[in-house]
Amino acid sequence: MAEPAGPFHVLRTGTGRFLCYCGPDGTVYVTDAMEVWAGELGGCSALGFRCPPEELGAMLRAALVHGAAALSLGPGSATLRLPEEPQCPALALAQLPAAEARSQLQALVFGMAGCIESLERRLEGPSKKAPSGVNFEDS
Amino acid sequence: MAEPAGPFHVLRTGTGRFLCYCGPDGTVYVTDAMEVWAGELGGCSALGFRCPPEELGAMLRAALVHGAAALSLGPGSATLRLPEEPQCPALALAQLPAAEARSQLQALVFGMAGCIESLERRLEGPSKKAPSGVNFEDS
Repeated sequence: MAEPAGPFHVLRTGTGRFLCYCGPDGTVYVTDAMEVWAGELGGCSALGFRCPPEELGAMLRAALVHGAAALSLGPGSATLRLPEEPQCPALALAQLPAAEARSQLQALVFGMAGCIESLERRLEGPSKKAPSGVNFEDS
Repeated sequence: MAEPAGPFHVLRTGTGRFLCYCGPDGTVYVTDAMEVWAGELGGCSALGFRCPPEELGAMLRAALVHGAAALSLGPGSATLRLPEEPQCPALALAQLPAAEARSQLQALVFGMAGCIESLERRLEGPSKKAPSGVNFEDS
């Protein structure tokens, strides 16, 4: 499964926290790191407007940084509201089946690990080496 | 559950990848983001040696950066070998029960999100603001 490269946005709420991010295919994911909800941000316009993933990321970042986002959870679904986005004021998210959610969370963890490695390399400068692989034997 | 602050190390192998990190309590965790194995790095010396979490992190980072680590998986357990660490050449890890593993993975995801936020703030400089919270309603 393709791994998300970020940006990753934490939606802090009174009752919990959710992580919101875009996948490489432009799908928007919201998760509490146990359940996962997914929807197409670019597909929610009546005009059939679709914007590329980098624009989706910028749109989400803007909405989340300004606190202009609201999440509503229902049985098997969720709604992410972006009232300041005329092209996509509300995004319907469908809860992923358990097996698909586990795979998506696995992709998320290693996508975030890659993001951290990349950010650390940028902070450390070009002289530092990334960690190398390790030996592995099943027993 | 206390969230890990990193560092997070990816153990790349021929058959898969594992994330290795220390918890705030000094416990060492290894996970493929589905199953989680845990053990006490500081508790594996015959002399009862225990080193503080920051030293554990440095020890793991050194071993992983130099590729001087090997992971063996068995039924319900795993062994992380650090042959260059005389005080802890081999660490026995126990597989966590499913419910505990899910909680640990949730703590990991939000711990990594906090790490990414912190690294991004360091890269962006002190003038940028961190994302604020969002509204939330259960429906």
